[in-house]
Amino acid sequence: MERIPILRMGEVLLVTIQVDMHDRLAMTLQDDLTTEIQRKRTSGVLVDISALDMVDSFIGRMIGNLSRMSQILDARTVVVGMRPAVAITLVELGMNLEGVHTALNVERGMTLLRTPERRTIPADGDYQN
Amino acid sequence: MERIPILRMGEVLLVTIQVDMHDRLAMTLQDDLTTEIQRKRTSGVLVDISALDMVDSFIGRMIGNLSRMSQILDARTVVVGMRPAVAITLVELGMNLEGVHTALNVERGMTLLRTPERRTIPADGDYQN
Repeated sequence: MERIPILRMGEVLLVTIQVDMHDRLAMTLQDDLTTEIQRKRTSGVLVDISALDMVDSFIGRMIGNLSRMSQILDARTVVVGMRPAVAITLVELGMNLEGVHTALNVERGMTLLRTPERRTIPADGDYQN
Repeated sequence: MERIPILRMGEVLLVTIQVDMHDRLAMTLQDDLTTEIQRKRTSGVLVDISALDMVDSFIGRMIGNLSRMSQILDARTVVVGMRPAVAITLVELGMNLEGVHTALNVERGMTLLRTPERRTIPADGDYQN
C-alpha cells in the first residue's frame, strides 16, 4: 500500500495510521492531507494512532509536523487512540507533542473539534491559542 | 501491526483496511468486530477499502463474511471507497458481494446507514431485506 487513506466526514478528516512509516509515505501523507484540507472546508483533522503499539522519534516528529501544517491551514489536529506505552515512549524521547491536542478516542476527538477554540488576546495585541 | 483498529463513532463502527490481509489478521478482525458490535449498541459498520488497489478472492470472501456476521448481530455493513479496479476484479472473480451494501465514500456510507432499511414481508410470512 503506497498511501494512507484520508477519510472525509463533513468538515473533519480522519487519518488512521496502521502501517510502519517511512520517509516517502510520510511525505505522501503530508501532501495528501494539506491538499485535502484546502480542497474543501475543513475544520479539523483526527489522527488515529490506536494501531501503533510503539513509536519512534520519526513518527513523533511527523505527528507534530502534520499538526503544525494543519494549523497554518486553519484546521485543528487531534491525535486520538494513543496507547499508554506510546505516551511513555514519547516523553522518554523528550517529545512532549506541544501544541498537539490529544483525545482518548475518535468520539472524544470529534467532541473536542466541535468546541470552539479559546483564543485570548494578550495586552500586546498578539493572538495566542 | 497485529490488528486492524475499529473506531467507534456513536452507533457506527469504522474499519479501515490498509494492510495486506492474512488468515490470522482476518480472524482477529472478525473476533474484534463481532465483540465490539455486541459490547455497545451498534447500528452499522463501515468498511473502508479505499487503500486497497487490488483484491483477491480471500479479501472478497472476508468482506462478505464480515457483512453476514454483522447482519446476524443486527448491524448493517456498508463497504466504502472501492476503487474501480477492485470492482472489476471482484466481478471477474465471480464475487458479486451479494447482500453487501456499498457506497462511494464514508459520508455517503453514513447517510446510507441513517436511512431505515426496507423490510418487505412476502405472502409466505418470511422476512426479506
